Amino acid sequence: MNSFGRLFRVTVFGESHGASVGVNIDGVPAGVPLKQEDFLADLERRKGGARGTTPRKEEDLPFLKSGVFNDHTTGAPITILFENNNTRSTDYEKLREFPRPGHADFVATEKFGGFEDYRGGGHFSGRLTLNLVAAGVIAKKILGDDIQVKATIKEVGGNPDPEAGLEAAIAAKDSVGGLVECTVDGLPIGLGEPFFDSLESNLAHAVFAIPAVKGIEFGAGFAAAKMKGLEHNDPIIDKTGKTATNHAGGVVGGITNGNQLVFRIAVKPTSSTPKEQQTLNIKSGEVETFSVKGRHDLCIALRVPVVLEAVTAMVLADFMLLEQRRPRVVSRKGAEEAKEA
Amino acid sequence: MNSFGRLFRVTVFGESHGASVGVNIDGVPAGVPLKQEDFLADLERRKGGARGTTPRKEEDLPFLKSGVFNDHTTGAPITILFENNNTRSTDYEKLREFPRPGHADFVATEKFGGFEDYRGGGHFSGRLTLNLVAAGVIAKKILGDDIQVKATIKEVGGNPDPEAGLEAAIAAKDSVGGLVECTVDGLPIGLGEPFFDSLESNLAHAVFAIPAVKGIEFGAGFAAAKMKGLEHNDPIIDKTGKTATNHAGGVVGGITNGNQLVFRIAVKPTSSTPKEQQTLNIKSGEVETFSVKGRHDLCIALRVPVVLEAVTAMVLADFMLLEQRRPRVVSRKGAEEAKEA
Amino acid sequence: MNSFGRLFRVTVFGESHGASVGVNIDGVPAGVPLKQEDFLADLERRKGGARGTTPRKEEDLPFLKSGVFNDHTTGAPITILFENNNTRSTDYEKLREFPRPGHADFVATEKFGGFEDYRGGGHFSGRLTLNLVAAGVIAKKILGDDIQVKATIKEVGGNPDPEAGLEAAIAAKDSVGGLVECTVDGLPIGLGEPFFDSLESNLAHAVFAIPAVKGIEFGAGFAAAKMKGLEHNDPIIDKTGKTATNHAGGVVGGITNGNQLVFRIAVKPTSSTPKEQQTLNIKSGEVETFSVKGRHDLCIALRVPVVLEAVTAMVLADFMLLEQRRPRVVSRKGAEEAKEA
Amino acid sequence: MNSFGRLFRVTVFGESHGASVGVNIDGVPAGVPLKQEDFLADLERRKGGARGTTPRKEEDLPFLKSGVFNDHTTGAPITILFENNNTRSTDYEKLREFPRPGHADFVATEKFGGFEDYRGGGHFSGRLTLNLVAAGVIAKKILGDDIQVKATIKEVGGNPDPEAGLEAAIAAKDSVGGLVECTVDGLPIGLGEPFFDSLESNLAHAVFAIPAVKGIEFGAGFAAAKMKGLEHNDPIIDKTGKTATNHAGGVVGGITNGNQLVFRIAVKPTSSTPKEQQTLNIKSGEVETFSVKGRHDLCIALRVPVVLEAVTAMVLADFMLLEQRRPRVVSRKGAEEAKEA
Repeated sequence: MNSFGRLFRVTVFGESHGASVGVNIDGVPAGVPLKQEDFLADLERRKGGARGTTPRKEEDLPFLKSGVFNDHTTGAPITILFENNNTRSTDYEKLREFPRPGHADFVATEKFGGFEDYRGGGHFSGRLTLNLVAAGVIAKKILGDDIQVKATIKEVGGNPDPEAGLEAAIAAKDSVGGLVECTVDGLPIGLGEPFFDSLESNLAHAVFAIPAVKGIEFGAGFAAAKMKGLEHNDPIIDKTGKTATNHAGGVVGGITNGNQLVFRIAVKPTSSTPKEQQTLNIKSGEVETFSVKGRHDLCIALRVPVVLEAVTAMVLADFMLLEQRRPRVVSRKGAEEAKEA
Repeated sequence: MNSFGRLFRVTVFGESHGASVGVNIDGVPAGVPLKQEDFLADLERRKGGARGTTPRKEEDLPFLKSGVFNDHTTGAPITILFENNNTRSTDYEKLREFPRPGHADFVATEKFGGFEDYRGGGHFSGRLTLNLVAAGVIAKKILGDDIQVKATIKEVGGNPDPEAGLEAAIAAKDSVGGLVECTVDGLPIGLGEPFFDSLESNLAHAVFAIPAVKGIEFGAGFAAAKMKGLEHNDPIIDKTGKTATNHAGGVVGGITNGNQLVFRIAVKPTSSTPKEQQTLNIKSGEVETFSVKGRHDLCIALRVPVVLEAVTAMVLADFMLLEQRRPRVVSRKGAEEAKEA
Repeated sequence: MNSFGRLFRVTVFGESHGASVGVNIDGVPAGVPLKQEDFLADLERRKGGARGTTPRKEEDLPFLKSGVFNDHTTGAPITILFENNNTRSTDYEKLREFPRPGHADFVATEKFGGFEDYRGGGHFSGRLTLNLVAAGVIAKKILGDDIQVKATIKEVGGNPDPEAGLEAAIAAKDSVGGLVECTVDGLPIGLGEPFFDSLESNLAHAVFAIPAVKGIEFGAGFAAAKMKGLEHNDPIIDKTGKTATNHAGGVVGGITNGNQLVFRIAVKPTSSTPKEQQTLNIKSGEVETFSVKGRHDLCIALRVPVVLEAVTAMVLADFMLLEQRRPRVVSRKGAEEAKEA
Repeated sequence: MNSFGRLFRVTVFGESHGASVGVNIDGVPAGVPLKQEDFLADLERRKGGARGTTPRKEEDLPFLKSGVFNDHTTGAPITILFENNNTRSTDYEKLREFPRPGHADFVATEKFGGFEDYRGGGHFSGRLTLNLVAAGVIAKKILGDDIQVKATIKEVGGNPDPEAGLEAAIAAKDSVGGLVECTVDGLPIGLGEPFFDSLESNLAHAVFAIPAVKGIEFGAGFAAAKMKGLEHNDPIIDKTGKTATNHAGGVVGGITNGNQLVFRIAVKPTSSTPKEQQTLNIKSGEVETFSVKGRHDLCIALRVPVVLEAVTAMVLADFMLLEQRRPRVVSRKGAEEAKEA
């Protein structure tokens, strides 16, 4: 439910306007150097405040509540807490009669019987992606420098020049979708478990946990559906498994083949458009005009790359541990020294 | 690994040219009527033999080895076995020096140290989709008549007329990809569990277990990345949650919203094209010309719809049980009568 | 690893002398009334300070960090944090050269390479049972008033008069073991899942997570090994399944049979005896005399009953949800009213 | 439910008088030599036919249906099937009106609504321990020769001379319980995962899946509850963690400490005693006299040792893989040779 991963296991919790959001990560090898500062760069990348993103600003300081001792992971589960300080819940109270189109408001009330914390999207809020980014920082440490995970925005509103796409949306006073690509270099051959735990299965599972994602494709992806076999097949050209082309996106049979992992995701326009919308007033039972207040991103896709990197790193760290390519204690040598000191 | 699902749990096993393929399904409610005949229609839909599909024909009779008594499920795990009788392994023995492009041959050897059963793709074979179809038959029974899962081929080789697309491939003597759409009517509001078990996450996870799938998109999908918010948002128009449009594809916040569930998958061209290919001879270490022998589909996408329905039904049955919308004993009334008799 | 349960899922974290200990509980139905005060009675029962228990006293205030809104559970995961304020780590620093017999010190260093938080037992500390008690409070709410879980101390140091047994230990200036019994009334027939998730399997699994437990027996337990069949069998005497005797302890075939659930656990003497011990000095490599400092219980069994109730309630709540005997939203009626208000 | 283990994952299925019983084992490393003959010795140990055991005799030939190729495991899931040929179901048909005391008959009917396969205990039958023994054979291979798992019967009917205990039962024409001990030599330090996956938790979980087990204790076990701290503590005497005594039974803090693992289980008397019993006739609603027909063991404990070894080996193999002390491909060298040949 709110947990994912087998050996690197991430559990998220919290609500947008509750006391806090946070994450618990179990299965982290002992001996990974870890301090609060290590999280700041990726958390900064996720932050709002830039053009086209929400003006809500939080300190977003990660508090390490367990699992770290003397600036190293201990092998016990790590809990990271983010306090919510900058909330303006009254923005949301008045919206209850209009379940916002594209948001979980309506389904959450149906599913949780009206008990859900509806303020700011509650447990469905994009604010929970803080947790993913934090988990991703640790996952990247497990992957190490040899494995590079990199996500970039490729399109905004269909425009391969994201800046231009964003300007168009700002001009139109409407929110807008985007396309994000993720590549991973340095992966070994053999990550992915038949039959149900293919690499694609696990990545897609994690990626669709990111709010607003509506599609994922690997390598040639949907274009592959239009191709012929000779055109699509990637000839193997040496004993390391290197292929001449990479239509497979680095995965065959659900398993990494040693080439670059490449996949793209479709991010829908932020549901909270500044535009007026026609939708149901749940009290009156009538379709009425309403507009979303509160502070929102125009293009949520702009903040997705670091989140996408994070879930990708989470999945890969899990597979690297499963495949025994990362040890359960990062450095027995370091441990020896720690014992000496 | 080879299991999927929480309450409706499917475990697949077997190899293309081994003794058998089969499936174990745990968590099936007691009291579901079930006989061998119930599987035949869907298994027939999956079969090869039609134009553009493999000439290999198997009886594909499902043998119920456990979990069924007096033509009803018992609540104990169900095991279904398919014997492999019509294998021509010698076709494959000679191919070992050429790990086939697009196939798992190369990665399987690397991952399993050469111990994998390489004949006919072994455990990676499309033949294992028999298991999915069988599990799907049971899942559909749990869903009942009110929930209709339907998958259809929408394009072959980029042609919205699948027949024409196939003819073009036959003429070109090459394999070809395809696009398959799945719709589900009759779903209740509320299926899907935040944060990591969104409906999309679970469906995508299961769908990428189907060999040759390279992409999945829900509702507007990749087109959503190019849209504006007002355009994409689906206005809610009544208290049942019905929306005026369905760009969301029936899922918001990872949870079904009571509208039709719609998603599409991209199926790559069959890797075993009849064309000659350039690829590595693993023995000589040289790139050489080779061509795949054996019996293969030109367009594997043609056989995917029933498989896609099956995994979709599996995922939905699991959520229906989790959400307590299906009982653990299908009919206590029937049970009473059974006790009387 | 640090998680347990399928539908009622408990994840514990924290260290004795770290920033905090805490627990995350996923799968709690929406709509359960819940406030900080609800935890106090059971937390009080667990506290040290009484004769024979540790003089370390903590406020042990549970902070609800997520999953609760307007004093009701929301259906989102609940996180409860306990701050550690009353720690005296220097007591432990000096002990590092003597891995304490009966404690995890030695194995933790071996397993986690010296990176473990060794202060006060770290993640192995009995302080983590706070988390279990907190989870148990919620589990008991799910069970409701009809299901009564009750654990009591039956023996201290082999003495069926626990007070007398404790006095003997105090007189002997040594720690001492104890026997704790748990009974549950009001359970329905049918909890427990063949083959591996028998009720005994799940209870035993959870119970052995409690530090210092060395044995568990159901009903007649070890005495059954000495009995004859006619003597041990419990004759069924009416259609509700009531039995004349209860040697089975309320479980047959791994499934509750509607009679009282009864089981007992053996708790070893507190490893931190005040007595001097002979054991290895890991630095010198010699067996030397040492004695444990710090504040400890003489008879940890005295504090176990409320913990045992907690894990028992956790396991039973999980089964009640699995068997669909508890809804995923506790009160749709209450929800309606909440929506009105 | 019917699955257990994380990396070495065992799923059992089948019914006593159905088509078959069988087991699926996922996560077995590739490259383990495996043939039908390898199972015979342990299956033979489990067989009935000896004095005090059931006269029902089956061939019990294990058919390897998947996951094995060229007499080695492939890394794909292994399925082993046992056919049921020697069934006499009519023995059971007439018993339906008397749910047998001590058996699952009554609870199974309640839980599964009367749809359960009641013949010979169905899915609850001791016949399913065949599956455990088969899985255990593979688990023992993973453990290798350095780790020796050995279970022996210590008491029958309270008599430390099991032969004499059995003779007494035969003379009394009643069934009888027994005590079985299991020891494991050669385990490394560090198996067991805090907090919920202690070695004791996992072993107890698996052990209580064996029918008729009513208690488990580690090391001093229930005797520990009567001991003082100084008496119970095991002084560490060298840097390998060797202890002077072994009251802990080789586990502290839930983790192996490098000493012999020792635990004992209580097995209740076979419920199917030859004696007449008073119990409910479910049709008449009256307590009546009945006696169990069919072929049964007088002392089921006699057949438990090999089953106990099997589940112990299963649990340990799982931990050895988790702790990365066993590779995912048993012999890359062997694999190289296999590739050459």
